[in-house]
Order: sequence, then structure tokens, then C-alpha cells
Amino acid sequence: MSKEETSLRRVSIFDTTLRDGEQAPGNAMLPEQKLELALAIEALGVDVIETGMPSSSASDYKATQLISEAMTTARIATLCRAVREDVRLAVEAGGTRRHQVQIMATGSETHLKHKRGITRAEAVREVVDAISYAKELGTDHVVLGIEDATRGSDSLLRELVEESVAAGADHIGAADTTGCMTPREYGDLIRRMRSWVTPDIRVSTHCHEDLGLSLANTLAGIEAGADEVQTSLAGIGERAGNASLEELIAVLVYKGEALGATTDVRPEGLFHAFQVLRRSIGLPIPRNKAIFGANAFATQAGIHQAGMLRAPITYEYIEPHRFGRERSILVGRHSGRAVLRHVMEEMGLEVDEKVVDLIYEEHVANRTNGDCLDLAGVRELILDKRAIATGALR
Amino acid sequence: MSKEETSLRRVSIFDTTLRDGEQAPGNAMLPEQKLELALAIEALGVDVIETGMPSSSASDYKATQLISEAMTTARIATLCRAVREDVRLAVEAGGTRRHQVQIMATGSETHLKHKRGITRAEAVREVVDAISYAKELGTDHVVLGIEDATRGSDSLLRELVEESVAAGADHIGAADTTGCMTPREYGDLIRRMRSWVTPDIRVSTHCHEDLGLSLANTLAGIEAGADEVQTSLAGIGERAGNASLEELIAVLVYKGEALGATTDVRPEGLFHAFQVLRRSIGLPIPRNKAIFGANAFATQAGIHQAGMLRAPITYEYIEPHRFGRERSILVGRHSGRAVLRHVMEEMGLEVDEKVVDLIYEEHVANRTNGDCLDLAGVRELILDKRAIATGALR
Repeated sequence: MSKEETSLRRVSIFDTTLRDGEQAPGNAMLPEQKLELALAIEALGVDVIETGMPSSSASDYKATQLISEAMTTARIATLCRAVREDVRLAVEAGGTRRHQVQIMATGSETHLKHKRGITRAEAVREVVDAISYAKELGTDHVVLGIEDATRGSDSLLRELVEESVAAGADHIGAADTTGCMTPREYGDLIRRMRSWVTPDIRVSTHCHEDLGLSLANTLAGIEAGADEVQTSLAGIGERAGNASLEELIAVLVYKGEALGATTDVRPEGLFHAFQVLRRSIGLPIPRNKAIFGANAFATQAGIHQAGMLRAPITYEYIEPHRFGRERSILVGRHSGRAVLRHVMEEMGLEVDEKVVDLIYEEHVANRTNGDCLDLAGVRELILDKRAIATGALR
Repeated sequence: MSKEETSLRRVSIFDTTLRDGEQAPGNAMLPEQKLELALAIEALGVDVIETGMPSSSASDYKATQLISEAMTTARIATLCRAVREDVRLAVEAGGTRRHQVQIMATGSETHLKHKRGITRAEAVREVVDAISYAKELGTDHVVLGIEDATRGSDSLLRELVEESVAAGADHIGAADTTGCMTPREYGDLIRRMRSWVTPDIRVSTHCHEDLGLSLANTLAGIEAGADEVQTSLAGIGERAGNASLEELIAVLVYKGEALGATTDVRPEGLFHAFQVLRRSIGLPIPRNKAIFGANAFATQAGIHQAGMLRAPITYEYIEPHRFGRERSILVGRHSGRAVLRHVMEEMGLEVDEKVVDLIYEEHVANRTNGDCLDLAGVRELILDKRAIATGALR
């Protein structure tokens, strides 16, 4: 394998589309829909697929069963409160092998007081008990998932981490639950947490988009030593959402060397997986969004098209075909004459400036609405106007 | 002014919604629509509003005239190719005062060769000529806007910068035109460019979202000494778009101390300005997006609502009212019983577990679609089920 010959560290990609993504308003899915999407995500080469919270509903329990039976390469993950019954249901639904059982810890003084109304000692005791129980059941991968870690004191976080690892946790994760951190702050947190455990204990990230920094925070986490990163398709998730899987993969593909990190995820199928998600939850294609946006690989502005028509590299850094997308050249109010001449040439016609002017005046310069013509529409116009200009219709 | 008493550096906010935003497919606006939006953006306290590219169309010329006459606090900016006629039209439409005339430089070897087909000497000569001409016309603020700067060699960039400043440029800007840089790379570029000029020369950022890093890159630019940052409402712009104005403001509001930077922009009106934009270009509200998303301040999941109902601070870092938004508590398949009990209490009713169970089973646990009820809908259900449970309807 060439990947293993490089010195890049392979980061494990954890997908939370079916859990954090699905729990946001408007995104609920049936177990069968979750299964279909899990298969599409597994096909990308994603390492871990979170199926839901089995204790929260019969639907999440069923989805966990279906997905754990269907996966052939990806591991699954589930989310549990720090109570034995949640762990029991998760293991019953998803088994003890190739299953990352995540146990939620209350990770900030704010959550201890205002959400839970419990003491720090109780918070530590409940996760230690749940982790020990998961280990007793034979679970081979138990994760301490620290909620609101980014607002917790180091002293609370460290006690949760050390006691959990002592109880058998294999993996610790720090959630920026409210999306309150900058990349420097989050990188520092992951670096400290990494230093509290031995290298065999895995560390993962979970970042929210409230300040628009979920991806940058995830990258800071990778640079600080995180082994695994939680992301979702199109960034769906609570409030503003989570770090986007497709953006993270794009960064690893194009900037992996600089980050010292790599992935086995294959970007070509990302847009297909997004289409499966869109059908499930009725999500429109956003006009502008990295990788998945309607305009992500489209141009209409003359100042850009003049370059794109000569060489796409002029305005394209991400290559659309690598992400299952296509380049589109559109004609609208900001286009120039260059694109019209280009299409004529492509059609094997001689460039007729009279035809160019006719189309430019009517469909570009004096266009009153914001929409655009695609090149098929432009070709039709050229044939029409050419007939008029040469008098063929008279 | 208390702001001036702090040691934070005030960053100038430049809005490119009406130029880079408007030139993307689907976003074209009429001059009167641009004026309406410019007034809404000026009302936020934005420092500079780019009106368009006056040489590109009668519409952009007219919009520049209208907006330059209407602004009372914001300066305007326009974009010109490095040709005298573009500069002449920009100055004719927008005047010589409180007007940042931006002259585009060809900033990479790739663009020299594949977009322009010109030599480096020609690229330097054309910007020097256009800048000198703008100065001759009496323009008080001339900007060298370097296109594709993030793929250009330092030697090309430095020559463009030094010759332009010698010709009278007051300000230099580095565009990450293809959105190809990480925060570290972009911060380093701004730091180098800052070192090539004296402190009186302003430096600005222009970042694209192709890798999902436009905001993080902009912040890296600020930390590296940029005086001004270009952003757009909702991040509209070429391809994946630009850095989002509302996200940048949120970071400056909540993280200004850490960045050492502040702004005079008032966040309360941002959502209103977004609504004006949405009406103009028919842009739907995205489901999940920081600040402006339908779900940005909404929760339905029981594990979050249990906290939110006790104290919003449990899951809210950004305060919705500061951004013209409202918190919404929704009931859907992921909700718990806590929200139902809470609404009953708020209605002044005694909590009736029979009613709670009836609603929970029918409208939460066995809900088959992804949509949600708002609290008005929940109140209606409670009254209905209560009537049934107490036999009042029989």
C-alpha cells in the first residue's frame, strides 16, 4: 500500500450524520433510511459510522441492529448516557465487536449545575460505573465522550479522563458542544488531553459550527494529535451543524502533506452519498457551499470565464470530478462576449460578431433577472440568432 | 468611546455581497435592489461597501452612482481591471472621495500564462499605469487588489506590491481567489506582505470557501496584521462563496479579546439584512448554517432540551437575540417527556402524566416523519389530549 509508505499519519474518519445530524430538527430518518445511508457512507471508506442512541427510541435501536449487521468494512458507534440500561441496550442492539460504545460524560461545571444538577463526584462515578459495565459485557472499544468539554475546567476534564481510563476506557473524545472555541483554543485542549493519557488511548474530536469554525477546529485537533475526527455529511447536526465530512476530506486530499495526515476515504462518492441523504430528509442543494453547493463548480462572471475557457486551473483548485461533481459554465448578466465566441467555436461555427452582439445585448447586458442559461441554452440561441442574422428566416 | 479605551485593534469590515456575491450564478440584482441592500448593510456599521464593477455593465455603473450618493457613514469600493477606462468609469460613477478604487493585479504565474497571456513586466506595468491614473484623477484611496495571490510567487507579489506603492497605492489586498489555502499558509502570506510595506499602507484579506476555511483564513489574516477584511452576507460569492460577514462578526464579538481585534459592526441587524438579501435573490434559509440557519438556535433533541429548559446557557454559546434571532424549542421524534411537562407547567396546568404519555407515544416516539411541532402546536395538543384524558369530550 503506497499510503503506508508515506510518513503521513492516517486519521480515522467517524461519521455522525445518523446521530448528531439526524437529531436536529427536520432530519429524522426511519431505520431503513439510516441503513441505506450507512451503506452509502461505508462505501466511501469511512472508518466508523454512528447509528444513533439505541436507548432513546425503538427506531434508533432498530437502526443500530440493521446497520451493525450490514457493515462489512466500517465499525459502528452508538451513544449512551452514563447509565447501565443505555449501555445494555446499545450492546444488545449493536454487539460487542467492531462497535465503539460511547458513554457521555458531563464535562463542564455549567452542565453539572444547570443541566444535570449533580456534583462532580457523581459525574465521575456514573461514567466509571457505565464504562466498567460496558467492559464487563465484553465491549472491545469503549469511548468516554465528554460533552461540553470546551467549557469545562481542566481539573474536571482530567479527573473524568483519568478515572475513565482506569476503569477501562479505550478512547476519549472532547466535544465542543456549543461550538464556542477557536482553532487555537481547541488545538490546545486536544494537546492537553493527549498528554493526560498513554499513546494507546485514542483521542477524538467533535466540533460544532456555531462560530463557523468547526472544520478549522477539527484540523487543529488533528495537528494536536487526535486519532479520530467526527464529521457529518453536509455538516448536518445540532443548530449550525458539525464539521462537514466532504470539506474535511477535501482538505486531507489537497493539504494532507501540510497537516501530516491522510485518510482512506475516497472522495468520488461523496456527492452520491449526499444525494441519498437529501432524498431521505428533503434537504435542498445549497447555492453556495464547499463541494456540495449548486455553484461550487459553476461560473457565470466574465472576469472568471475568460480564464476558465482557456484553462480551468485558472479558477479551480478543487477538481470537480474527484468529488463526483461536474464543472458548469453558465451565461448570465455578468458574463462577457468570450463565452459566446467560445461556444460558437466549439459548435464548429465561424465566430460571427453580429450574432455575438445580438445575444450579448439581449441575454447578457440587458438581462433583468438573476438566473442563468446553461450552455445547451446558449447553443440554441446561437442557432436562432444566426438564422436571423443571415436572413435565413426571412 | 469605551471601544477606543481598550487595547484591541479595530478591524475595518469590507462587504463584497454586492460584487463577489452578486456575480455568482443566481444572485444578479438590479441597481435599486443593490441600493436597498447597501442601506441595510450600512445600517449595521459596516465600514466599506463594494458596489460592483462599474465598467462591466450599465447596471453596475448605475448601482455605484446610487449607492455612493446614498451612503452617509460607509465608504464605497469598486473593482476595476488594470485599464484606464475601467478606472475612469469607476471614478465617474463613484467619485474620488470615500471611495476605495480597487485595481486588479494578475497575481500568479498561472494567471499570467493561462488567463492573461501576458508577461510579468506587462502585469506590473498595467497596474502601475492604472494606479497612477487613478491618483491623477484625484482618487484618495487606491487599492491594489491582487487576484490569485495565494498561488503567486513571492517574487511576483513583491514586485507588484512595491511598484504599486511607489505609484501611489494606499492599500494592498491578497485574494485567495481559488480558496486553496489553509489558515497557516494564508496568515504567513499576509504577514510577509505586511512586512513589504510601511505601516501606513493598509492590508486586506479576501478569502474563498472552497475548502471550508474562508473564515479561519480571514482570522489568520487578522492575526497576521490585516487592517481590513472582505466578507459577504451569508458568504455568498463565487463557487462555494466568501467568508461570511455574520460569522466574522460573531467571532469578533465573542473572541475579540483572544484575537486582539474589535469591530464597530452591530450584530443585531444582521438577520434583517440577510432577509433583504434573500428577498432580492430568492435565497432560501439554509437548515443548518451558523447564525442564519433555520436550526441555528433551534433544538428538538431530548438530551439537549432537558438542559435548555433549565437554562439556555447549557447549549447556547451565541445568544440569539444579539443577532436578531429567537430561540426555538421544537418537539419531534428525538424529544423527551421533559419538554411536554415544561409546556404544561408554563400553561399553568398541573402536570398530568397520562396526558404526557398520550402525546409522547403518538407525537414523539411513533412519529414517522422528520418534521417538528412548535410550542404553539404542543399547547394545542395538550388542551386536546387533556380534554380526552379527563373525559370532557365524552
